[in-house]
Amino acid sequence: MTENKKKILAFGEVMLRIAMAQNRTIEQTNEARLNFTGTGLNVLSGLAHFGYETALLTQLPDNRVGDAAKADVRRLGVSDQFIKQGGNHIGLYFLEQGYGNRPSEVTYLDRAHSSFCLSTWTEDELRLAVDSVDLVHICGISLILTPETRFAALALARIAFESEKEVCFDFNYRPSLAYEADLNLIRKDYEEMLGYASIVLGSSRDLIELLELETKYEESNYERIVQKFLKANKIKLFAGTNKKIETTARFVQGFVYTESEYALSPFYPVYTLDRIGTGDAYAAGIIVKYLENSPLQDIVNFATASSVLAHTTQGDSPILSKRHVDQFLENPHLDIMR
Amino acid sequence: MTENKKKILAFGEVMLRIAMAQNRTIEQTNEARLNFTGTGLNVLSGLAHFGYETALLTQLPDNRVGDAAKADVRRLGVSDQFIKQGGNHIGLYFLEQGYGNRPSEVTYLDRAHSSFCLSTWTEDELRLAVDSVDLVHICGISLILTPETRFAALALARIAFESEKEVCFDFNYRPSLAYEADLNLIRKDYEEMLGYASIVLGSSRDLIELLELETKYEESNYERIVQKFLKANKIKLFAGTNKKIETTARFVQGFVYTESEYALSPFYPVYTLDRIGTGDAYAAGIIVKYLENSPLQDIVNFATASSVLAHTTQGDSPILSKRHVDQFLENPHLDIMR
Amino acid sequence: MTENKKKILAFGEVMLRIAMAQNRTIEQTNEARLNFTGTGLNVLSGLAHFGYETALLTQLPDNRVGDAAKADVRRLGVSDQFIKQGGNHIGLYFLEQGYGNRPSEVTYLDRAHSSFCLSTWTEDELRLAVDSVDLVHICGISLILTPETRFAALALARIAFESEKEVCFDFNYRPSLAYEADLNLIRKDYEEMLGYASIVLGSSRDLIELLELETKYEESNYERIVQKFLKANKIKLFAGTNKKIETTARFVQGFVYTESEYALSPFYPVYTLDRIGTGDAYAAGIIVKYLENSPLQDIVNFATASSVLAHTTQGDSPILSKRHVDQFLENPHLDIMR
Amino acid sequence: MTENKKKILAFGEVMLRIAMAQNRTIEQTNEARLNFTGTGLNVLSGLAHFGYETALLTQLPDNRVGDAAKADVRRLGVSDQFIKQGGNHIGLYFLEQGYGNRPSEVTYLDRAHSSFCLSTWTEDELRLAVDSVDLVHICGISLILTPETRFAALALARIAFESEKEVCFDFNYRPSLAYEADLNLIRKDYEEMLGYASIVLGSSRDLIELLELETKYEESNYERIVQKFLKANKIKLFAGTNKKIETTARFVQGFVYTESEYALSPFYPVYTLDRIGTGDAYAAGIIVKYLENSPLQDIVNFATASSVLAHTTQGDSPILSKRHVDQFLENPHLDIMR
Amino acid sequence: MTENKKKILAFGEVMLRIAMAQNRTIEQTNEARLNFTGTGLNVLSGLAHFGYETALLTQLPDNRVGDAAKADVRRLGVSDQFIKQGGNHIGLYFLEQGYGNRPSEVTYLDRAHSSFCLSTWTEDELRLAVDSVDLVHICGISLILTPETRFAALALARIAFESEKEVCFDFNYRPSLAYEADLNLIRKDYEEMLGYASIVLGSSRDLIELLELETKYEESNYERIVQKFLKANKIKLFAGTNKKIETTARFVQGFVYTESEYALSPFYPVYTLDRIGTGDAYAAGIIVKYLENSPLQDIVNFATASSVLAHTTQGDSPILSKRHVDQFLENPHLDIMR
Amino acid sequence: MTENKKKILAFGEVMLRIAMAQNRTIEQTNEARLNFTGTGLNVLSGLAHFGYETALLTQLPDNRVGDAAKADVRRLGVSDQFIKQGGNHIGLYFLEQGYGNRPSEVTYLDRAHSSFCLSTWTEDELRLAVDSVDLVHICGISLILTPETRFAALALARIAFESEKEVCFDFNYRPSLAYEADLNLIRKDYEEMLGYASIVLGSSRDLIELLELETKYEESNYERIVQKFLKANKIKLFAGTNKKIETTARFVQGFVYTESEYALSPFYPVYTLDRIGTGDAYAAGIIVKYLENSPLQDIVNFATASSVLAHTTQGDSPILSKRHVDQFLENPHLDIMR
Repeated sequence: MTENKKKILAFGEVMLRIAMAQNRTIEQTNEARLNFTGTGLNVLSGLAHFGYETALLTQLPDNRVGDAAKADVRRLGVSDQFIKQGGNHIGLYFLEQGYGNRPSEVTYLDRAHSSFCLSTWTEDELRLAVDSVDLVHICGISLILTPETRFAALALARIAFESEKEVCFDFNYRPSLAYEADLNLIRKDYEEMLGYASIVLGSSRDLIELLELETKYEESNYERIVQKFLKANKIKLFAGTNKKIETTARFVQGFVYTESEYALSPFYPVYTLDRIGTGDAYAAGIIVKYLENSPLQDIVNFATASSVLAHTTQGDSPILSKRHVDQFLENPHLDIMR
Repeated sequence: MTENKKKILAFGEVMLRIAMAQNRTIEQTNEARLNFTGTGLNVLSGLAHFGYETALLTQLPDNRVGDAAKADVRRLGVSDQFIKQGGNHIGLYFLEQGYGNRPSEVTYLDRAHSSFCLSTWTEDELRLAVDSVDLVHICGISLILTPETRFAALALARIAFESEKEVCFDFNYRPSLAYEADLNLIRKDYEEMLGYASIVLGSSRDLIELLELETKYEESNYERIVQKFLKANKIKLFAGTNKKIETTARFVQGFVYTESEYALSPFYPVYTLDRIGTGDAYAAGIIVKYLENSPLQDIVNFATASSVLAHTTQGDSPILSKRHVDQFLENPHLDIMR
Repeated sequence: MTENKKKILAFGEVMLRIAMAQNRTIEQTNEARLNFTGTGLNVLSGLAHFGYETALLTQLPDNRVGDAAKADVRRLGVSDQFIKQGGNHIGLYFLEQGYGNRPSEVTYLDRAHSSFCLSTWTEDELRLAVDSVDLVHICGISLILTPETRFAALALARIAFESEKEVCFDFNYRPSLAYEADLNLIRKDYEEMLGYASIVLGSSRDLIELLELETKYEESNYERIVQKFLKANKIKLFAGTNKKIETTARFVQGFVYTESEYALSPFYPVYTLDRIGTGDAYAAGIIVKYLENSPLQDIVNFATASSVLAHTTQGDSPILSKRHVDQFLENPHLDIMR
Repeated sequence: MTENKKKILAFGEVMLRIAMAQNRTIEQTNEARLNFTGTGLNVLSGLAHFGYETALLTQLPDNRVGDAAKADVRRLGVSDQFIKQGGNHIGLYFLEQGYGNRPSEVTYLDRAHSSFCLSTWTEDELRLAVDSVDLVHICGISLILTPETRFAALALARIAFESEKEVCFDFNYRPSLAYEADLNLIRKDYEEMLGYASIVLGSSRDLIELLELETKYEESNYERIVQKFLKANKIKLFAGTNKKIETTARFVQGFVYTESEYALSPFYPVYTLDRIGTGDAYAAGIIVKYLENSPLQDIVNFATASSVLAHTTQGDSPILSKRHVDQFLENPHLDIMR
Repeated sequence: MTENKKKILAFGEVMLRIAMAQNRTIEQTNEARLNFTGTGLNVLSGLAHFGYETALLTQLPDNRVGDAAKADVRRLGVSDQFIKQGGNHIGLYFLEQGYGNRPSEVTYLDRAHSSFCLSTWTEDELRLAVDSVDLVHICGISLILTPETRFAALALARIAFESEKEVCFDFNYRPSLAYEADLNLIRKDYEEMLGYASIVLGSSRDLIELLELETKYEESNYERIVQKFLKANKIKLFAGTNKKIETTARFVQGFVYTESEYALSPFYPVYTLDRIGTGDAYAAGIIVKYLENSPLQDIVNFATASSVLAHTTQGDSPILSKRHVDQFLENPHLDIMR
Repeated sequence: MTENKKKILAFGEVMLRIAMAQNRTIEQTNEARLNFTGTGLNVLSGLAHFGYETALLTQLPDNRVGDAAKADVRRLGVSDQFIKQGGNHIGLYFLEQGYGNRPSEVTYLDRAHSSFCLSTWTEDELRLAVDSVDLVHICGISLILTPETRFAALALARIAFESEKEVCFDFNYRPSLAYEADLNLIRKDYEEMLGYASIVLGSSRDLIELLELETKYEESNYERIVQKFLKANKIKLFAGTNKKIETTARFVQGFVYTESEYALSPFYPVYTLDRIGTGDAYAAGIIVKYLENSPLQDIVNFATASSVLAHTTQGDSPILSKRHVDQFLENPHLDIMR
């Protein structure tokens, strides 16, 4: 089917999303929709729907919930061959979907004691997984969640780097989730990780502020800082999005930097059915077009369109194919595909 | 929990709302969602979610439907201690939810024979309820529904007034519901009620037209008429909303008058998931900030935000907390709260 | 399609059934399923599904609910040509479906002010409807609901009788619904009605007790009383059912009397998915086989099977075809029809 | 009820629409909503809801699915008296509802072997149906689906024409569905059909390009070509719609030509809940106002409003009444009808 | 409403039950129904539906989930006045409902870190709660869950005992949940608790085995052991149920012992819609009839009927009224209540 | 995960099952649940849930429906590596679920033009699939569906036989589906197939009657005929089930023959939630225990328990694990697994 296609591995937590039905609050309804989700899984779902082979490296509980999570992973087109089962807890969050100018609201229950957060991995396990793929995706949340996930994320990145596999790192810096209070230690971990990465996803601001790059490079122009940084770390691609709002309309624009160039997509209007996971659809778009050696402008347009469309589908995991994205790029106003 | 907080009583009908599923018409689907609703209940739900103690004064049928209504009242955070049960009918309406430029459509079944519409109340019952609270909310619909409800509403307001409790009166003038055809008699009842009220909610136009204030005050400037009227009736606050439409966007703005001042909120864009009960969310916002002695501008901004957000939630009863409203005022473009 | 088939008219109230979802109580869920129902409609639905032309004579509210009720009538295969619209209320009942040894619970809201209960009919309207059919079905509830429905039911039966059309009368005696307290007056109405009827459905006991037949015929044997009564009133058929319970199994048996014969069906086990309307399925079975001049044993077997199967379908209105009933009679243990 | 009203017949396929729940893709959910649909049925549903008598001429499978389709036809207010049953297949399509800038996606399963596509009709059957009505609606898809449907469509149009009944032809040219590859043969069929038609619905462009009218009339101005064409074919009305998009808002405008005049409606904003069948709502609007001899401007405004509102209702079949359309024309910003 | 009625307090965990829809497994569906549950809450729900005032003593998370749990507690008729909020986790379990001979399956996620399991209570807090009630219900699970819950449960029982309030202790011994491995320590806690209790619910076997009563009393007859035990501990009532199965039917029988008497209910057939919480319905039945000083036979019959009916309702929490239970005792074969 | 486990391939059609919601008829509801199903897929789902590696050999449409079917196959734990995509149709059937003594009703739409029924396979494709597995499952329906499926089924069996892989053949003889009218030709195909098979599933009667074994073996004792037949064809195992009904209870018993022995399971009571696919659960049970070299009695008990439990789960595809089946065998009356 997908012969000679490159294969992608992601490391990350699978969480259970409990989304209350029909934009209601937890108090208003007993009906919920359960989905298994997580940055790594979402990126792989996007890549699988774009036609690639993918596998998730994670640990799930050794019970009915873990079994069901594995079934859902396979349904999305992602291999469960590197999924271990152990423990009895899974990270979970409630989603009260917003509407219009009411924001969606996320409530986390206990995450620190999840099967993934307590998982430990041997060098051999990591190496086995790395050996079977071309690119490894790691999310910054793993760096700060627990000592166990931090250790595994760095070890995996190092092994991938040593094996000359591409590493795609999603910055995803959320101080509120960090188990470690010392910002210097956190920064050090991020710096180590960035040393292994060839693709980095994030916002320019987070990157610059966390790493104190203005000071480091004695430079205040964002673009130049980013490009100096890419050059210094031998990072091939840095990508993210910009947003703007006009009265009642929202727009998103993608950007991609190399150490010498950059490209911007148009600002596309955003219609939101489900707000979560659109960044992961962007990442999947970047990775797929990068792996296909597309021109920079095509990379950023495709990734932005992928993200724009992910706002219009239910659930966190991207579910649309290349055909959908390509057609949107060609005719963004089409209203029925027959 | 809510110690030393002021307590609010509302008098009004609890109706059963039968909302057809997913914007379908009655003819298109057999699936409906049932909710208990009513102006008084909605205002109290808003206040309960803003952290206040509340109680509803009403009569419900003495059957399974009445029992279920009481459970729903409690779920919303409103006390059922002053709810009587008697009779076997409840007012009910069908809701066919509109979408975009298709209006929502409300169809009432028999309301005049409901448990509430036929309820009678002794002076003692009313006094007992009034004694336990700081403010009493009464909706104008009670004045015109049946002789029984008219009598109870006026007696309750008088008792509250005599007991030096605040009376909040929602004008809510709907001639189509009036059992009494003689406009002079209706006007007389409204005038009596307004003599007891310290807060009045309504549209300037309805107020002026029903009470023939242009003639009475020989004045044509709306603001001045309203302020003269407030002064004459010792009403502390008169509040309501203005709307405007620009192409495909709708906006709402709140206003509040005292006899000497007035304040307007910004025009906020309105996104409508469920169109009913947003006026009650506005009333709850006015009352809560009034009870907290907030500045006029804060009162109107908070109430308008409360109403704007109520357009984005399912059901007639306001369900969001102060935290939600405050955050909207601070960052109206936030799309995910984590 | 149904050429040369006989045509049946029924007179009776269409009510709105509000059934709470999945065997929950009103207090436990907001989700309900709405259906239009009523003895006359149910009998006609059964007959329509057995291949006959049918029409309902009733009045529905002149609003969205009445429109939707008409659409539902047509969907069931019943003509709406004799349905008037007027008023704004419809009789309605809540259904909390039982399970196993928990009985289903029915809660009526206001019925006396429904469009049907307040409807009046001219001689011409009734005659027009009668002229177009071969058999008229009338339910005893119409005799006791309101003066208006009592008057119309008797007038309709008289006109049908005078026009030499068959009248099928379902005894359905429920004292709790009677507007009229004087049992003698009620008995008199039933006696008049029975004078017009050629088919009567009911329980032997209700018949005998209401009409005081033991005294009248100085006879204590139920069968002989019934047969004397049939002879005296020139009633061709009297039909009903017997029930029995064995530990955890329920069984039903049909009976049919003529003035000289009677037949009993086997006791069939009853599995209950939805308990209401099974008597109407029995009536439809009796009528269809009577109209087809079937032997007495075939009449009672077919009707009993029709009723047994109606316990296994959702909703009050019979929905299965002759093919289903015939197959059940042939192979009552079949588990898949392909 | 609808006495002395004109009656309309439509010929066309009834298909089964399988719409995945809540804007999900087929892969994302097991829940679907089934509806019977089709251009002819949709147009008749619109006309029935505008108060007309209607009947559908089609063939449905002779099984449970065909029975259910007939029930649905009746529910929509359309007579099933001219529906035959035969065969065991029905055309069906999956609908994955889009959202915002994600288009809805339609996936057809086998259609060529459906009961309708294989149906044959005698001259007598067609004549019987035509004789009972005033206007016959035929959809262009029948011309290209199978040899059987092409033959029946042309025969029906000819018979209607000979019987001096109005023929309304909806161009609906979709080359992808054509069984016949030779464009000249297709054009010839369309030309024959247009010779019978008095009302034609379509886009100016399709009309002109399929029939090569620029060449034929040696004319390049669209309006003049259309009017020459109407004159040449004695067509009384040619109607269709124009669309435009402004940032995030969509608008639609109706047009109607006679051989000497034309009228345009305003551009109305379009809010889309369900994208399919809005053209059929337009057609129903044109037909009803044409049959009522309304002025050209009223025809086009009513039809456009009908189409605009059809975007806001669920399902393919128009379901709103004249009251809804008239009220929209009067107050397009109303948000609650009480 | 419930004046002069006795009031009951329960201490225990509120858990979130995630029940997969329609008897499906977690793997088979994304749809779930969420309910808040727990032995204490269930017993109180039963008592509230029997007409008593009740209050729950527990800790819930200080987030949206905790807020929603409180709303659900109130909906069930239980006061939330003694509910604290703190922490961010709630115990939760998945329920895959069985059917027939397939057992229901319960999967617990992390429970040890729940807001309740980590809650600490001051003497004053406990005393305040105890002072306002007549009877305190404590579940044995609290004794073994965490050191915090063990400590609070024993302190609460002691304070109630010292305050001369009744203590009802539900044995509910589940070794698998115990944080403490030393059975001697566990036994000691149970013995202390039983010293405070006046009503004990449990199975004879668990009681005897955990407390090693055969050895202690040198006695092998179960009844005599139990009665010796009751006497020794001044326990007024020991109650539980026996089960039996005959081919495809299940039956349950209640028993109640005092130190000198015992009573057995009939064996009632059990029809299971939802298998969990039926023991809590039994406990509620025992408590209510005990508080009303009913004869022993009435106590056990009522409690057994309460439990039998709880098998036929959805959800863990008993939801039926005295009227339902009394009617079942009077007519266990009734199929429709009108 | 499943290392060194044997791997199973099945060849067969994937159909779309459209099951109407909640035991309703097609006419009664618009809500349906879609599942992909088929004998081969069901058997593999059972085996995957028992811990084996499995792969399905089939062709699916090359459209959104085919894509979704593949996702569902993977979700069930079955590999999609041998699934081709082509054509645009899928076989589908409607399921109206019965209840109690109302049989479930299956309505097939067009099946003959499905992607599978028109699929052709090269020797190489078949050999590639066979080479990767230990056992191949083929369903008798493939022998009679279309010439294409007959050809592929026989070729596949021959290749497996030649490669010394086990062939499991499910008799599944349904004359109504046969494209070929000549019984002699059909018999010949079955005989060829049975020559390749080592495990055969079916009813003794079908086997004997189709193959005219009474005549052939001049023998009338069923057991002896079967055993002669097994010996003659070198078939290792012949397995199937017997049923019996007692009043309102149904029971099933499994049987397994070798050429020299046979074993019967107990008669287990059957509770039916979903009636389809239980034979496939039986087959999966036979295969798994056969592959594990279990004693004959264990094989038949496990398979029967697997089938009994499959009656209690939703959907055609077996979904329970070995743990569930083993526990049922150990304690068939357990009602909650914690």
